[in-house]
Amino acid sequence: MRREITGFSNPTVKYLRSLRDKKHRKREQRFLAEGLRLLTDARECGHLPQMLVMATGRDPHPLLDALESAVDAAGGEIIETTPDILAKITGKDNPQAVAGVFAEFDTSLAALDRTRSGIWLVAQALRDPGNLGTMLRTGDAVGAGGLILIDDCADPFSVEAVRASMGAIFTQQVAQARWDDFLPWLGEGSGQLVAASLRDAVPYRGAPYTAPCFVLVGNESRGLPEEYELACDLRVTMPMRGRADSLNAAVAGAVLAYEVLDGLERR
Amino acid sequence: MRREITGFSNPTVKYLRSLRDKKHRKREQRFLAEGLRLLTDARECGHLPQMLVMATGRDPHPLLDALESAVDAAGGEIIETTPDILAKITGKDNPQAVAGVFAEFDTSLAALDRTRSGIWLVAQALRDPGNLGTMLRTGDAVGAGGLILIDDCADPFSVEAVRASMGAIFTQQVAQARWDDFLPWLGEGSGQLVAASLRDAVPYRGAPYTAPCFVLVGNESRGLPEEYELACDLRVTMPMRGRADSLNAAVAGAVLAYEVLDGLERR
Repeated sequence: MRREITGFSNPTVKYLRSLRDKKHRKREQRFLAEGLRLLTDARECGHLPQMLVMATGRDPHPLLDALESAVDAAGGEIIETTPDILAKITGKDNPQAVAGVFAEFDTSLAALDRTRSGIWLVAQALRDPGNLGTMLRTGDAVGAGGLILIDDCADPFSVEAVRASMGAIFTQQVAQARWDDFLPWLGEGSGQLVAASLRDAVPYRGAPYTAPCFVLVGNESRGLPEEYELACDLRVTMPMRGRADSLNAAVAGAVLAYEVLDGLERR
Repeated sequence: MRREITGFSNPTVKYLRSLRDKKHRKREQRFLAEGLRLLTDARECGHLPQMLVMATGRDPHPLLDALESAVDAAGGEIIETTPDILAKITGKDNPQAVAGVFAEFDTSLAALDRTRSGIWLVAQALRDPGNLGTMLRTGDAVGAGGLILIDDCADPFSVEAVRASMGAIFTQQVAQARWDDFLPWLGEGSGQLVAASLRDAVPYRGAPYTAPCFVLVGNESRGLPEEYELACDLRVTMPMRGRADSLNAAVAGAVLAYEVLDGLERR
């Protein structure tokens, strides 16, 4: 189905804008993603938008044509609208020429396949959607299986997280769980839980990482609760040469994940 | 001098709010920083605010007393105001109980002391103030000398960058320069310029880093211009195991900086 929308007050515009709000996303089980590159990554990973929104006056592009054909063939909806309305939908001043509405994925632990990779990222109470998206992007880069979100984290399907993930929301598996459910799940199979810590820790460089290795980072301001650190199989310490004794959560996770990648590939 | 402000329309409130705007910051050569921990870091690094703004009804704290005494002794201004007005000044819903106005530093290359550290971070056209602040924070953690901002970067004195730096704006030297001025400056002394690249590059792990090592990262969406990469003394490549071939700029800089730190400390 194809149609054109020219008015800001159109109900579809209101619906699309509402997906920037977590409450509406949860009710609809849908999320927004924007940009030709990101939507192409999604398509190539088997995720097609249910609704494709394209700006009038956009430059033609073979990848956009491919996307449009695929959505059309799958029975999805195709909408053309003005760049102004698209900007209002995505909340970005210089919007990309295309956005899509996707069905949210199953984010239960049961849906994860831990044999998929030797590295997994785990974040506890990560509150910043930019950090969350950045961790997804890092996970993609190190070939991680996915990101497990423990306790109250930012919403992985928020526009900001999806944007910061640069498409990795479609390549990484994502799970959401309480700590009390995560630990038993982890114990059901093989898996080494590793955290950066100052407590009874070994240097992160060359530490005995084993696959599948679950790299755990804590909340941006409070770090990990002591009991969570103590539950880890391995605690590692990273050099801190300055005044502060901490790194940005997504940065700490990335430095550690690259070290784990190197350690596992050397075996 | 000490006074109380109770009205939103007070000229000092307007002045303080205006410092969230780059144009006003540049004219006044002043910037805002918030939070007791950050202001304490500043004090311990020899930076006192010219104006200290405290919320009425705040919890007492010995570090806040120390800050207040130091500002008073230095002839600075001390202002008490309501939490609502402080929130309006900092633009944050849950403001810290204290904020300060600082004089901007000299950010010329001439003010840098390259013998200060074996590691320096360099960012080209870094547009996101959160990434910029995160790089400052990483620089502090690896014991870098500072951050050199090439071409049109975000403003290191913006509220967002200062906040993300977690105080590192006061521990790291910061310079702003055009590429055409940076390269000759670099050539005036010793210094190895290193970039992550796919062009004629060696693995980043165990690469021959030498101090002082200048770790260069490029713009968030375009990366480094080819000519900048070619001007580097060393090009290194980082594993990319996923679909995407890139990392968040601040993350890439951090993974590389930790590798450089390890390499230099092994010598």
